[in-house]
Amino acid sequence: MSLRTALTELFDLRHPIMLAPMGGVAGGELAAAVSNAGGLGMIGSGDRAWLERELAIVADKTRSPWGVGFLSWAVDHDTIRWVLDEYRPRAVMLSFGDPRPFADAVRAAGATLMVQVTDHDEARRAVEAGAEVIVAQGGEAGGHGAGRSTMTIVPTVADLVHPTPVLAAGGIADGRGLAAALTLGAAGAMIGTRFEATHEAVLSAEEAKAIVAARGDDTSRNRVFDIARRSPWPTKYTARMLRNPFFDRWQDREDELRADTTAQDAYLDAVQRQDPTAIPVWAGEGVDLITAIEPAADVLTRIAAEADAALARAARRHVDDL
Amino acid sequence: MSLRTALTELFDLRHPIMLAPMGGVAGGELAAAVSNAGGLGMIGSGDRAWLERELAIVADKTRSPWGVGFLSWAVDHDTIRWVLDEYRPRAVMLSFGDPRPFADAVRAAGATLMVQVTDHDEARRAVEAGAEVIVAQGGEAGGHGAGRSTMTIVPTVADLVHPTPVLAAGGIADGRGLAAALTLGAAGAMIGTRFEATHEAVLSAEEAKAIVAARGDDTSRNRVFDIARRSPWPTKYTARMLRNPFFDRWQDREDELRADTTAQDAYLDAVQRQDPTAIPVWAGEGVDLITAIEPAADVLTRIAAEADAALARAARRHVDDL
Repeated sequence: MSLRTALTELFDLRHPIMLAPMGGVAGGELAAAVSNAGGLGMIGSGDRAWLERELAIVADKTRSPWGVGFLSWAVDHDTIRWVLDEYRPRAVMLSFGDPRPFADAVRAAGATLMVQVTDHDEARRAVEAGAEVIVAQGGEAGGHGAGRSTMTIVPTVADLVHPTPVLAAGGIADGRGLAAALTLGAAGAMIGTRFEATHEAVLSAEEAKAIVAARGDDTSRNRVFDIARRSPWPTKYTARMLRNPFFDRWQDREDELRADTTAQDAYLDAVQRQDPTAIPVWAGEGVDLITAIEPAADVLTRIAAEADAALARAARRHVDDL
Repeated sequence: MSLRTALTELFDLRHPIMLAPMGGVAGGELAAAVSNAGGLGMIGSGDRAWLERELAIVADKTRSPWGVGFLSWAVDHDTIRWVLDEYRPRAVMLSFGDPRPFADAVRAAGATLMVQVTDHDEARRAVEAGAEVIVAQGGEAGGHGAGRSTMTIVPTVADLVHPTPVLAAGGIADGRGLAAALTLGAAGAMIGTRFEATHEAVLSAEEAKAIVAARGDDTSRNRVFDIARRSPWPTKYTARMLRNPFFDRWQDREDELRADTTAQDAYLDAVQRQDPTAIPVWAGEGVDLITAIEPAADVLTRIAAEADAALARAARRHVDDL
């Protein structure tokens, strides 16, 4: 059995699963593994050297559709045009910021325009931009995002942007989550954290182990690390990560940290030293469901099979009234 | 068609839906309406006069099973014993705090012990207390709660407490949400905010209208109002409500408000005057899905029918591989 949705039809996928284009983590090996296993692999954003290296890998390792994710607030026209012209991705996802300045270039190049949204205003803007797929991201997600949760943002964005297909993102790490996404009205799921704990992710062994060991109660969505590293991320977006000693020290003291350049310098030094008590491990609330570091293809096919089983189990609960 | 789960079996319900025992809102009329329509009606907590009045109503208006919810941190043994002895509820739910001191009395009286949890430590404690049903509440919920979201807390608590039945709470306001709860592994959904906008809820017309008008992006989970009213609620729990001018003034300034007894007095005065710019309307993220004030029975039967349709739609997405 196989799950057919608007997403699988659009890209001729075997499974309605898209890899989240995690910056610095979703490289060519991971994207190719996901695409070759029948999902939609995505390359995360990074600097030009990262993109050049990882795009060459994905272009080399798969003949199946794959895509690239960009941060709307950070990317420039030259980079998008270069990626479109040189590597011909089948899909481009724009996240976090205004997608409209880049939308025409993406569609003119024949790539499918996907826009990730975190609230209804962003969903309306995505429609204006001509998005062909909209990813509704709940705050359960690892890394940057906002406050709405998957359970409510998916059905309400689906209503708002109908008939544009919507993917669910945030907190989905097994087949029950994918099945729930489909019943909520999504055409599939975008999955990040679960794919961090794979052999193909660009992640240190320590970080992957931390994700396997962590519990969902251990994650936090905050601005502490963006403040500490003087990041230009728009303040609208917070980031979810595993709690660590640096976070525990600055939790609920974001204003203080913003004013304390000495503490910021100390943080940047700690990052230079690769201090694991300071460096954040980006992870979503779904970490409870991650118990092993595995090949990405195994993760993908298991989630699809589990979703099948979860839907079948839920369907068996229908009985004719006596 | 009808959905059969461990919850419907336990109480012989027509639909796997339980009313959230919303304090001061879920009174006898609403609980009886839900029970008579085939769900499990619940009376919310309140002072002795409230309980006496509302318990008399529910006992009078339905022959179907119904229950009562108590706040573990606030309730006393005498109150629980009095309710058990006088009114013989079929179910008692204990929320927010340690249920263990009250568990024996509930079970000894023959009532089904339900415990609401907001994280995994609480879930383990609920099992220790001998809970027969565990409600896993995500932070999408209106009113008091915590930070985990429904999408991840439901499957992980279900794994943790297996084979105890788990209900999903938080962000569920239509049949897609109920269907998602079932695919996540829940035996049903506990629904609050959607039942606030019913004819039977104890809520002012202004509050009900505000819920119909509001968007999910307009809700906030915070401690502002508990601080302003000098509430003894444990600080672990925040509350979700519609944003209002008082909240906007104090957002991100909770420490300042805690120290400002003049501002607290002004807030208490405003509440006395029924000032709508100050009084919080408790509501969950699911408010987007609420478009009308309706009879509770209509809401209940529609959600069940929609869940049927959502599961059927998801099941149709299975196709044999060619």
